[in-house]
Amino acid sequence: MIIRDANDEDLPATARFFRTIVAAGETYAYPEDLDDREIADLWMERPPGRCVVAVGDDGIVLGSAKMGPNRPGRGAHIATASFMVDPAAQGRGIGRALGLEALRWARERGFHGMQFNAVVETNAAAVHLWQRLGFAIMTTIPEAFEHPQHGRVGLHVMYQRF
Amino acid sequence: MIIRDANDEDLPATARFFRTIVAAGETYAYPEDLDDREIADLWMERPPGRCVVAVGDDGIVLGSAKMGPNRPGRGAHIATASFMVDPAAQGRGIGRALGLEALRWARERGFHGMQFNAVVETNAAAVHLWQRLGFAIMTTIPEAFEHPQHGRVGLHVMYQRF
Repeated sequence: MIIRDANDEDLPATARFFRTIVAAGETYAYPEDLDDREIADLWMERPPGRCVVAVGDDGIVLGSAKMGPNRPGRGAHIATASFMVDPAAQGRGIGRALGLEALRWARERGFHGMQFNAVVETNAAAVHLWQRLGFAIMTTIPEAFEHPQHGRVGLHVMYQRF
Repeated sequence: MIIRDANDEDLPATARFFRTIVAAGETYAYPEDLDDREIADLWMERPPGRCVVAVGDDGIVLGSAKMGPNRPGRGAHIATASFMVDPAAQGRGIGRALGLEALRWARERGFHGMQFNAVVETNAAAVHLWQRLGFAIMTTIPEAFEHPQHGRVGLHVMYQRF
């Protein structure tokens, strides 16, 4: 598995698991039923940000991450990032590899920290992964995410300083 | 002073104090040097959100607020809002009136709470006003805002449940 910058040819595969993940409704507060162009606008982040894909040995896109400044202007020294792994490829360390790459990139670019604005508290695998990679739960906004099975659950704000 | 929905004719006055406030650099992490059209795209929020202006007896726009869902999709039941008061009109209760109107609107629309994502911790007047109107500081992301006088200061995440 390698991680490389995303290009336009990665859009169909990325859009496929993007839709699957958003429709499952367990991790992201994105709109459903977006077309490929809207998904590209939302996910395939451009400079000063970046979008990468994790690609398996057979060339198949298994996951993706976008990263960039969390805010413009006077907040642009703190990074943020978002991650998606094809549900069919979970459990293979792809999320961890994408997380490490986002942190490496943000450090290299001179960001002073990374903030996740909305990590669904019931997404235990993600919460634990980010904690292992150095993020702390700064607060939890209660009932801020409508989970299809658990009802309204909290959204963590997570942060790590570099 | 009245508060009413903003319209296109309010843009020049709103853009004027928007630029003054962003250039002062003490309260908002917006880009500087935006033209009127970019300010309209950023500030004059459209349905399902809303933008209002506070207008003095002489018809002059003294302040503005935008409000709407803090996130799309499964996060759309929590509102957010942003406020600007012309520095020349500060101390007249305009921020408070705009805050009360945003809360009234969000409650009426059935939102379950309101979240402010980035309140500059040195903006004491705003922090105290929001506390008086029922918001709690949920956490502070340290050094997340580059203040022109104080250097890197924290950004509060503030929240109130309805």
